[in-house]
Amino acid sequence: MKTLLVVLDGLSDWPVGELGNKTPLEAAEKSFIDRLASLGAQGYMDPISPGTIPGSDTSHLAIFGIDPRKYYPGRGPFEAIGSGAILNPGDVAFRGNFATVNEDMVVTNRRAGRIDFGLDQLVRDLNSELNKMDFDGVRIELYRGAEHRVAVVLRGHDLSYRVSDTDPHKEGLKVLSSRPLDNDPRSIKTAEVINKFTSWVHRFLTDHKVNRDRVEHGYLPANIILVRGAGMMRKIPRITEHERLNITRPAAISATSLIKGVCRLVGFEVYHPEGATGGLNTRIDVKVDTAIKLLKGNYDLVFLHFKGTDSASHDGKPDAKKRFIEKVSSELSRIFDEFNGEIVIGITGDHTTSSIRREHASDPVPFLVYAPRMFRDSLSTFSERTSRQGGMGRIRGVDLLYLLMDLAEKQDKFGA
Amino acid sequence: MKTLLVVLDGLSDWPVGELGNKTPLEAAEKSFIDRLASLGAQGYMDPISPGTIPGSDTSHLAIFGIDPRKYYPGRGPFEAIGSGAILNPGDVAFRGNFATVNEDMVVTNRRAGRIDFGLDQLVRDLNSELNKMDFDGVRIELYRGAEHRVAVVLRGHDLSYRVSDTDPHKEGLKVLSSRPLDNDPRSIKTAEVINKFTSWVHRFLTDHKVNRDRVEHGYLPANIILVRGAGMMRKIPRITEHERLNITRPAAISATSLIKGVCRLVGFEVYHPEGATGGLNTRIDVKVDTAIKLLKGNYDLVFLHFKGTDSASHDGKPDAKKRFIEKVSSELSRIFDEFNGEIVIGITGDHTTSSIRREHASDPVPFLVYAPRMFRDSLSTFSERTSRQGGMGRIRGVDLLYLLMDLAEKQDKFGA
Repeated sequence: MKTLLVVLDGLSDWPVGELGNKTPLEAAEKSFIDRLASLGAQGYMDPISPGTIPGSDTSHLAIFGIDPRKYYPGRGPFEAIGSGAILNPGDVAFRGNFATVNEDMVVTNRRAGRIDFGLDQLVRDLNSELNKMDFDGVRIELYRGAEHRVAVVLRGHDLSYRVSDTDPHKEGLKVLSSRPLDNDPRSIKTAEVINKFTSWVHRFLTDHKVNRDRVEHGYLPANIILVRGAGMMRKIPRITEHERLNITRPAAISATSLIKGVCRLVGFEVYHPEGATGGLNTRIDVKVDTAIKLLKGNYDLVFLHFKGTDSASHDGKPDAKKRFIEKVSSELSRIFDEFNGEIVIGITGDHTTSSIRREHASDPVPFLVYAPRMFRDSLSTFSERTSRQGGMGRIRGVDLLYLLMDLAEKQDKFGA
Repeated sequence: MKTLLVVLDGLSDWPVGELGNKTPLEAAEKSFIDRLASLGAQGYMDPISPGTIPGSDTSHLAIFGIDPRKYYPGRGPFEAIGSGAILNPGDVAFRGNFATVNEDMVVTNRRAGRIDFGLDQLVRDLNSELNKMDFDGVRIELYRGAEHRVAVVLRGHDLSYRVSDTDPHKEGLKVLSSRPLDNDPRSIKTAEVINKFTSWVHRFLTDHKVNRDRVEHGYLPANIILVRGAGMMRKIPRITEHERLNITRPAAISATSLIKGVCRLVGFEVYHPEGATGGLNTRIDVKVDTAIKLLKGNYDLVFLHFKGTDSASHDGKPDAKKRFIEKVSSELSRIFDEFNGEIVIGITGDHTTSSIRREHASDPVPFLVYAPRMFRDSLSTFSERTSRQGGMGRIRGVDLLYLLMDLAEKQDKFGA
């Protein structure tokens, strides 16, 4: 049987006053999802483990059956992946900021005033120069992130992530030299490369036309890149390699760079249909059309990701979150109907995002599973609260795919 | 926000007839704890994992976020720690008994009749001799435990815990030679050291005045020390090093040697206030005063340990346990009031101790967490039974601190 896993990013929430002390999921009129609740079973899931606040990257790894405590290489590589980089094991990546320094290399603004004017141009020009050079045999690439952010990727042999930041993390301090954090020659070399790169970047940016334009407009010059949070890409298992799960051809539908990157990394074929935006204004209908097409094709597992729920929570808009859930529910019914219910469906979030706190929270997320033949529970609506009474109890993110592939009757017995 | 973790040792229990088929926790009139239950949320916790009977040492390690399956070095080192030893990684420790042997080295009584007459004196005299000697470069120290027990600590380079016991575990058998359990030269050396030590101890004790006095009083001579359960101390992570938890300065209040030792080991500053006894007659009020002082000082996490509950259970006194819980509840209310509720509080036990069986049991223990801003559940009393309905579900000991530090808004997100 085919399997569909729907993740509404940051789905679960806290009760909010403007929704009558309900959560957006509780308040939503979502007749299809509630119908599925009455046909299936629910439970609640700690994406990582109880009390741990998940990021979207770590929680998606977990939901794909990969323990982030073992495999997560740190934020540097995942910021790069989120900005479109394709990383190989051994690559080292840093989180980076365009920033402003004075003539003494003192950081006067860690985010170049958060003004992104001209930064696209700078990244393009830096990359076309970097493309022609190397630093002691190490190639460097930049990936533009949101606002002032830029991921810095080092590729080469014998790199290390055991090096300190150049970012002083405070304004009024000098740009730091990166230092090796151990005696490994690879750490010594990597720190040297980063320091050479930093000097070169500063020289390159100081005279750049974009910075003259920025100053003319009254903006701070973006005359350095500060790096922090080095991480080395590891070999991460592919979803098709999980023992006993027998996933043969998985597809993912998402418009969010970070999630697309994670999906690619673990072996999904990634689809970004036209009109999918990774926001509240995404074409839900088009994503659902794509899911139907892929499920009818050669794919045995389709992962369908919606970001709108999370965006609404980060913006403190629980009502918009509720309405987004309602739209997704109504569109999802088409998949169920298309297969006459002969399909396995999982619906969950990757973490709680509180619309009040506007941030991720550690509260477990509800999940709902449906298969035509399964142990149902007696619930008929899906929410954070009902999930605590669900027949599936409390599980961890890394278990979810096993539950689903078992319901799809695809999983092998472990042992004899 | 400050965090208080209260552990009532052996808190949870089984229903007992003399309390109307309630557990001591159910029977207790504990208005403050029940008020906290109505303001917070509860769940039930397997200190180690379901179906595993925890010791106080392993369960406290787990509650401090340290997986005992990875880090517990065996009972030898922890008995030594419980008797006041400060162990360093690489030290090897054994559990030991004062025992009685005849002239053929046959063990006639494994516990020297359980008579502790003069044993303090023997340990002092042995230690002052041992202090002047070494065995192939290995220093040996003894730590007096309860009754006939004495921990034997070896310090030196190249030791091993892969050696067999000298204790034959049965009376009527000869004292055994310790044998190396593998071919490692360190195991061979350690077994030799233990055998030399055993011969020396026997000679020293045979002629000792205390033993002439014991025999005169009609007691068995304590003329040998039998050792068992070798373990090598490991490097155990400190509680301030847990990733993302951001505990900066933790303090512990306890009067129980084993718990004080574990706390010191994982990086707590340990307080043993005057009047705290580690028993039912402890000055609960003084311990609570100390907790308030520490919480108002520079400590971000205060661990408050009470042993009375466990002692009462081991003595088969559920009613005394109930009354002890009542007193603790009433004193704890002062902490809540002192902070006007602006504090995170966790209350739990480290394991179940059955007042009927007078021993530890594997049943999960109830836990209660309170924070001024949190998801409450609908319970208004705290007990083994209610905790099964709690909003926190079933967790493991190693997760508890993550839940608490998250409620205190001190925890970092894992990932992006």
